[in-house]
Amino acid sequence: MQKPIIYLQRPFREEFIAKIKEIAPDYQVNTELSDEELANVEITVGWKKEKELALLNHSNLKWVQAVSAGVDYLPLSEFEKHDILLSNGSGIHAVSISEHIIGTLLAYYRGLNQSTKNQMAKKWDQAGIHYDQLSGKNLLVVGTGHIGKQLSASLESLGVNVYGINTTGRPVDGFIETYSIKNLSKIVEGMDIVVGILPGTEATYHIFNSDIFNHMKASAMFVNVGRGDTVHTKELATALKDQQLAFAALDVFEEEPLPVDSQLWDLENLLITPHISGMTVDFQLKFMNIFLKNLKNYVEDGELVENQVRLKRGY
Amino acid sequence: MQKPIIYLQRPFREEFIAKIKEIAPDYQVNTELSDEELANVEITVGWKKEKELALLNHSNLKWVQAVSAGVDYLPLSEFEKHDILLSNGSGIHAVSISEHIIGTLLAYYRGLNQSTKNQMAKKWDQAGIHYDQLSGKNLLVVGTGHIGKQLSASLESLGVNVYGINTTGRPVDGFIETYSIKNLSKIVEGMDIVVGILPGTEATYHIFNSDIFNHMKASAMFVNVGRGDTVHTKELATALKDQQLAFAALDVFEEEPLPVDSQLWDLENLLITPHISGMTVDFQLKFMNIFLKNLKNYVEDGELVENQVRLKRGY
Repeated sequence: MQKPIIYLQRPFREEFIAKIKEIAPDYQVNTELSDEELANVEITVGWKKEKELALLNHSNLKWVQAVSAGVDYLPLSEFEKHDILLSNGSGIHAVSISEHIIGTLLAYYRGLNQSTKNQMAKKWDQAGIHYDQLSGKNLLVVGTGHIGKQLSASLESLGVNVYGINTTGRPVDGFIETYSIKNLSKIVEGMDIVVGILPGTEATYHIFNSDIFNHMKASAMFVNVGRGDTVHTKELATALKDQQLAFAALDVFEEEPLPVDSQLWDLENLLITPHISGMTVDFQLKFMNIFLKNLKNYVEDGELVENQVRLKRGY
Repeated sequence: MQKPIIYLQRPFREEFIAKIKEIAPDYQVNTELSDEELANVEITVGWKKEKELALLNHSNLKWVQAVSAGVDYLPLSEFEKHDILLSNGSGIHAVSISEHIIGTLLAYYRGLNQSTKNQMAKKWDQAGIHYDQLSGKNLLVVGTGHIGKQLSASLESLGVNVYGINTTGRPVDGFIETYSIKNLSKIVEGMDIVVGILPGTEATYHIFNSDIFNHMKASAMFVNVGRGDTVHTKELATALKDQQLAFAALDVFEEEPLPVDSQLWDLENLLITPHISGMTVDFQLKFMNIFLKNLKNYVEDGELVENQVRLKRGY
């Protein structure tokens, strides 16, 4: 009888493939797949659209280990129907995204974006530089998962007061106070910085809209590194134009790449980054820290211990 | 007999002037000065070039409270000759400069400078973005004074390994290890980031020169927020062009404003900011925390307790 297959849909270094084989000696590890092998696939690492139908309909798939944190692009209801376990890569990108967020805050507060523009024009303009102090500011993390917790910990010695929002308002370590998402518009009123790190679900669609922006301080900054469609782009553009809030930094967008005719490109008080906040060095090592732990547990008792996604909830 | 005069060469809010009068009731507080009053000046806050000769030659000056941290623009040998005490504003700018430095590090590591340039061209370029992780990096602070200590503390929760350089290599809290300035070229070899926060003295003139840049890693970043002439500008420009080091961020320059024909403006791997790192909110409050403490002690026993400059040493 053929061994069940662990199908790696992304390249990994030989050292990691060796570890997979050591932990799961009864499995075969494939990076390519023939039609005959399809039926034996039990575990897949990564998820490519072009293999989706084949895997769902013709394999013996039991576990999908996604590489990304967000899983809204996966066929969650199909997984549920077929009793397929799903785990994600949440946490891998946490340090990078946290550093990215702090970078955007300080780049704005210390006039670095403005300085870069002035430098291109060979312009020495001290008087025109906007500056402020991060230390002492109130920052609201909307989404208190891996990234939110990492961000909160990283901000600790920078003197920032970090508050959190999650579905129910349940307390989370590292946050001064956490509130329910129901109270978002009320809570942003007292915040100097609002950071969106939400997954894409029906409940979070366009949750950052004109109502929220209208409740924010005119001096406030908004950062989004969650899903692009958690932000109502047009209403944010209007709010920025009208100085309803002072500055925004977006790494994710409703449409990516951001179309060249988007009005966002021209906004002086917006920093656009091209979905790079999660790019991280040593990605394979960080990913394998999750996958190998899950694999060990899976071969022993068929369950996952890290980052299992609740399929109904979507994260 | 006329009261001795505290001469404020910069504007301060009424609340602070009231506090000065409360602490030093036997003094008169002036923001303007007539020729007749000159002889009665005993204390000055701030130092303007146009008043220099008059104060040195015709006043009864005993104490100069400078507003800046660096005092290399002051007539230190004259102060010494006339037994004039000098204190500086070191520490006022520490949080701002520390935030500025961290901002420049993360702006480089997270591709924000590049993104700003791409945004101006409406260019979505994910593949071309340089990214790296600050956490885990080795950072050398050259100059372990107020700012260096603040920087080290702020970096604590960001996972950076902070080393220090000072004159003698004496240990300083918050640094994993401190080394003598004599060993600078050797020590930079192991560092991912080198931050210059040195005062301008004969000993520090052009201390960051081709010898140091040649010893740095090709992947390393250099930041200077100390005095402009601690850097040999031409040799840094050459080192950046030759990729002897990867990136630099300069806030101070040998000539300010940086001349429009400087070759620095065009360097892709350099961030230029126009001497703004020390700009700080609540400046008056931060300054008065130093001055009022000194004033209280000065009127009681003629000595300073905060930030006294050793005139021979120059800081």
